Amino acid sequence: MKKKSRFLQTPIEPFVVEEGLSADALLARMERISFQGRNLATAHRIWQKMLQDDVTIFLGMAGALSAGGLRMIVAYLIANRYVDVLVSTGANLYHDLHETRGRRHYVGSTHADDAALAHDRIDRVYDTYASEEEFIDNDNWVAKFAASLDKRPYTSREFLHLLGGHLWDTTGQDGILTAAYRAKVPIFCPAIADSSIGMGLSQARQHVPGAGYIDIIGDIVESANIVIRRPRTASVVLGGGTPKNFINQASVQAEFYSDQVGGHSYALQIVTDVPHYGGASGSSLEEAQSWGKLSVDSDKVSVQADATIALPILTTALAASARSIVAERRMPIFTLEGTMTIDGQPVPCNRFEEVNEPAV
Amino acid sequence: MKKKSRFLQTPIEPFVVEEGLSADALLARMERISFQGRNLATAHRIWQKMLQDDVTIFLGMAGALSAGGLRMIVAYLIANRYVDVLVSTGANLYHDLHETRGRRHYVGSTHADDAALAHDRIDRVYDTYASEEEFIDNDNWVAKFAASLDKRPYTSREFLHLLGGHLWDTTGQDGILTAAYRAKVPIFCPAIADSSIGMGLSQARQHVPGAGYIDIIGDIVESANIVIRRPRTASVVLGGGTPKNFINQASVQAEFYSDQVGGHSYALQIVTDVPHYGGASGSSLEEAQSWGKLSVDSDKVSVQADATIALPILTTALAASARSIVAERRMPIFTLEGTMTIDGQPVPCNRFEEVNEPAV
Amino acid sequence: MKKKSRFLQTPIEPFVVEEGLSADALLARMERISFQGRNLATAHRIWQKMLQDDVTIFLGMAGALSAGGLRMIVAYLIANRYVDVLVSTGANLYHDLHETRGRRHYVGSTHADDAALAHDRIDRVYDTYASEEEFIDNDNWVAKFAASLDKRPYTSREFLHLLGGHLWDTTGQDGILTAAYRAKVPIFCPAIADSSIGMGLSQARQHVPGAGYIDIIGDIVESANIVIRRPRTASVVLGGGTPKNFINQASVQAEFYSDQVGGHSYALQIVTDVPHYGGASGSSLEEAQSWGKLSVDSDKVSVQADATIALPILTTALAASARSIVAERRMPIFTLEGTMTIDGQPVPCNRFEEVNEPAV
Amino acid sequence: MKKKSRFLQTPIEPFVVEEGLSADALLARMERISFQGRNLATAHRIWQKMLQDDVTIFLGMAGALSAGGLRMIVAYLIANRYVDVLVSTGANLYHDLHETRGRRHYVGSTHADDAALAHDRIDRVYDTYASEEEFIDNDNWVAKFAASLDKRPYTSREFLHLLGGHLWDTTGQDGILTAAYRAKVPIFCPAIADSSIGMGLSQARQHVPGAGYIDIIGDIVESANIVIRRPRTASVVLGGGTPKNFINQASVQAEFYSDQVGGHSYALQIVTDVPHYGGASGSSLEEAQSWGKLSVDSDKVSVQADATIALPILTTALAASARSIVAERRMPIFTLEGTMTIDGQPVPCNRFEEVNEPAV
Repeated sequence: MKKKSRFLQTPIEPFVVEEGLSADALLARMERISFQGRNLATAHRIWQKMLQDDVTIFLGMAGALSAGGLRMIVAYLIANRYVDVLVSTGANLYHDLHETRGRRHYVGSTHADDAALAHDRIDRVYDTYASEEEFIDNDNWVAKFAASLDKRPYTSREFLHLLGGHLWDTTGQDGILTAAYRAKVPIFCPAIADSSIGMGLSQARQHVPGAGYIDIIGDIVESANIVIRRPRTASVVLGGGTPKNFINQASVQAEFYSDQVGGHSYALQIVTDVPHYGGASGSSLEEAQSWGKLSVDSDKVSVQADATIALPILTTALAASARSIVAERRMPIFTLEGTMTIDGQPVPCNRFEEVNEPAV
Repeated sequence: MKKKSRFLQTPIEPFVVEEGLSADALLARMERISFQGRNLATAHRIWQKMLQDDVTIFLGMAGALSAGGLRMIVAYLIANRYVDVLVSTGANLYHDLHETRGRRHYVGSTHADDAALAHDRIDRVYDTYASEEEFIDNDNWVAKFAASLDKRPYTSREFLHLLGGHLWDTTGQDGILTAAYRAKVPIFCPAIADSSIGMGLSQARQHVPGAGYIDIIGDIVESANIVIRRPRTASVVLGGGTPKNFINQASVQAEFYSDQVGGHSYALQIVTDVPHYGGASGSSLEEAQSWGKLSVDSDKVSVQADATIALPILTTALAASARSIVAERRMPIFTLEGTMTIDGQPVPCNRFEEVNEPAV
Repeated sequence: MKKKSRFLQTPIEPFVVEEGLSADALLARMERISFQGRNLATAHRIWQKMLQDDVTIFLGMAGALSAGGLRMIVAYLIANRYVDVLVSTGANLYHDLHETRGRRHYVGSTHADDAALAHDRIDRVYDTYASEEEFIDNDNWVAKFAASLDKRPYTSREFLHLLGGHLWDTTGQDGILTAAYRAKVPIFCPAIADSSIGMGLSQARQHVPGAGYIDIIGDIVESANIVIRRPRTASVVLGGGTPKNFINQASVQAEFYSDQVGGHSYALQIVTDVPHYGGASGSSLEEAQSWGKLSVDSDKVSVQADATIALPILTTALAASARSIVAERRMPIFTLEGTMTIDGQPVPCNRFEEVNEPAV
Repeated sequence: MKKKSRFLQTPIEPFVVEEGLSADALLARMERISFQGRNLATAHRIWQKMLQDDVTIFLGMAGALSAGGLRMIVAYLIANRYVDVLVSTGANLYHDLHETRGRRHYVGSTHADDAALAHDRIDRVYDTYASEEEFIDNDNWVAKFAASLDKRPYTSREFLHLLGGHLWDTTGQDGILTAAYRAKVPIFCPAIADSSIGMGLSQARQHVPGAGYIDIIGDIVESANIVIRRPRTASVVLGGGTPKNFINQASVQAEFYSDQVGGHSYALQIVTDVPHYGGASGSSLEEAQSWGKLSVDSDKVSVQADATIALPILTTALAASARSIVAERRMPIFTLEGTMTIDGQPVPCNRFEEVNEPAV
């Protein structure tokens, strides 16, 4: 009998429909189908592995995920420490703040008359609406808070921790910023100047000269120092954008100052952009290996899917499959007032910690 | 107090993670988020409505769904009559036949060395492999069966019914073709000449002169006559391609001969192509209304997602949420030997049934 | 001094803007930039190579290219024999016929009110409109012509040649069908049943019983026999769909019957679909090598672009750069009445020509 | 005779191939075809209109355009004042600096062995390579320059002007940064912390305590003040990302402080992202109108295309068609040392200029 090719090892197992399957059971049945379904099931498995391993997990989020109804998922991941560090666009934090302050986004239509919306001062995000007046009130709220701070530069990380605290104190409501404040999870926002939070900060200057300074370069130093302190890392990316690159940059930058850093050990991305136009958002995880952003033996998967489909399933599945794993995690412990600390050691924003000894 | 804009009616409800949610509960929580997550939840609701209404449901499938592990989902939808008529590419039926005959597709890699695969005669479909030798054996099996038929033209619908019967008789295994045979669900394959089933048919001529005639124009007549008989219809499309257009064409063609036909009442598509290049696969359901393919008041949703993610969730949810609805469906009853009948009336392939009376 | 990596050989040459550059000069300057710009420039070079080599060039076209204003480009490629065989969707031939008969498509808007269009019986293709009444007149014209033919099966290739002749006789106008008729270039339409040409054929049966038989399986045989006769081939694909696969199938099918066939020597595709959902339209040319559709040493390039941008540039460039090459081409000579011949030898549609001798 | 529908006004004019057409002639022939080809031709026309009108033109660039061979096009647009203000990602400025300093990017392969590249310290951007060692040398060069500056915060705009000057002084070579320096065109980089320029800035702190402060919030103020000074604006966006939003934000922020600001009068974007996942990069220009980012009567077009194809054609065409228009432009005159001025008036970074008078 003819020998089978070495390429034909693991048969595809067709998905069998069964009433009542939970999200984790669904993903378990999708592990041996093909294409993005398989990739989503693999993402579930890799996230479990991250949680079992002793790694610091960075979560990046770009795209209108907060406005689009995913902010409580991210808050859940933070509160329950499925992730350790958040890197976000400003818009996601702003839309989170909007809802934590008791305002809402609304179900809208993609076939809206945008001139009519403009007349009513309704802002549209694809199929979702929000009130511009409520947004302006948020801006003022952020501006007022920023104006109340010391006249010194704050990293976005420190500012967002304080903002989260202020939000928790005034609302007592769950959300991304408040969950991160309470769980002492740092949030970096490298493109804060390109968001309504940045607009609020800029408006603080109208009230108090010299207010609203963000030391965005200090964020680079802090984030790299986290990796220098704990060189084994994982990257979970939703939607690409600046968070994706910033997480990779932390690793690359850390490697300049520490021999022990060698790229993320795990990487999982859920993206809708594609690689073939050369942009970073859609770039492949293989390409990231050439840069040393990921280690060449990292466990990795890229899922081409809208996060509004992929994330509800994935996190619901993890809530069941990873509950006991998370309970036993050896996660990093941060303090976030003034100079950040990790596991009791300071993480400065004004110089990189240099580690030249060989890895043990 | 300021009046709220008419545009701000239904707030977004952020998805809340909860351990153990089943697929239908997941989709219920996604109804008031945004983007494609909302659309997938809407698809679930619209499919339920179709099943509750007295409509004939066409299912179109394109893309490598059978090779990719979704064939038993389609078989489930057919066997349990979540759909009434299947329109498929040839490849999906061929890969179904391959597995029903006991062969497998295999988990592969997108980073394969294709020259090495070619050397081993392994055919790659993105991240999935199959043995070319096994494919050739299928071709011969199809050719032999086709050569055994009468020397007359068969519509693809009739041929595929006979092929399904032969497959059931020789294997006794579940799959798309065998489920359709047993459930008496017609399958149309308008592009059968562009597939390995077509290749098998062509090879029949090498054995028996005059074998392998498919009356593909007769398929147009039959499919339109189904709509003429039962003018209220629904369209469920996976992946676009020829099935999407063929299902719409049946409606448009039927309208030429019957005053009672007015476009599909429901339409649901799960596609990965986009509208902005003008191709039919990615075309919007709104555009379809201009043609009369859909009625202007149809209930419709387009989900931009890979079917390998969307379909397992959607059908698992339907298995729970629509079980009792399906039990009470008033579905069309077909016979598929020789001239097809629907609800006891013949559905010819050589002339359109003309219905000129006004709709009741 | 440090040795340079073997990977760093050919520097990127930034594109330099210069007034008055012609299309071929533009593409020449794009050869050493990156991403899809480089790929488009490479496509230009590969098409030139095809024309210089002694290969039969298949052109596949899918998507709404004729309605979208590219039909005279395809007619040009046929008339001047930049290609030798056309494989098309039915819609492209139908929209070509529509304009050759003197009707027009119209500039429209993507923000149209589709209910208003439906009311006016205007059919929309993304940003382009057409009159449904004029379409119905075309259907009748096709039906009447089909009803006038002999009551025997015609391959789509033979039917389309006769249709092109009838169109030329009645209009004397340029277009795809008439150019192919006059240049004796065969056109295959494997999914003719999924188009308005198919609808016209089906309506012929209403007038003349037994009319409108298309031997679509015969098209498989004819197309493979072309490859068997001239085993060296090239594939130019616009938009994927059934034409892409049919062209590859001709090669794979031919290989079953001839030792001399070994996959296309050149392949160029301009597509908007992506590989990662597993569909054939977006599949990579590397994947095609695993199947033997392309030879493992073929010259190939895939351009991710809308043909309405890429094709005007590419063909305008070729008109200058390949004019003298085309003048010296050793192209296949077809006759297309009844049984097709190639270079004087018959190309039957009822049996494959078997060639078992080793290649010379 | 039947009246023609009001929807059928302007017929599609099929593109006719003609040897030797220049880029502007090509685009002129594409104005009445369909889909993205028409959109690209419309972009050409709208850019001409911008140049004829008395508006300040913002150019946004994201994606790996500099590495990918388009940096000299952007330099051309700046030097010849087809644009007035540049908003860029850090990577595009960094890769520009890399080449201006005499280093190169290289033609690479998408099928590279990334582990082998990592071993050779070659960084891959899709199909393009660069030397990591050369990149590290750039980082050091930026760090050293940043360390030489005053210990005070600089807006990214001021820093990049100084960096461009230093680059011009040390190399005398053309490029984006040097062209902007010489033409006195301001460059904003809102996500500078997410780039290798940011990494260089962060490394300056290792040499000089307190170095490397970027006042990114000041950039918001400066950019809005530009719009307040000259309320009529246009937006040209390549690739979305932070530049797209930052340009819109400048308009929205300016509107808070001036009654004369009412959204961009013209908008043109060349993007590869799509709207249906809700992200800002792919968002439609109609949606932008709901926010007031664009005026409701703005002239606008979105082209779905890779900039490496679209931009060479578009700018080559403009070089011919807009040469005389540009010669007569009433463009804003900037000075960029210390506090920026526009048309002789200061543009502060520490407070918004308030304009409450009604527009004249």
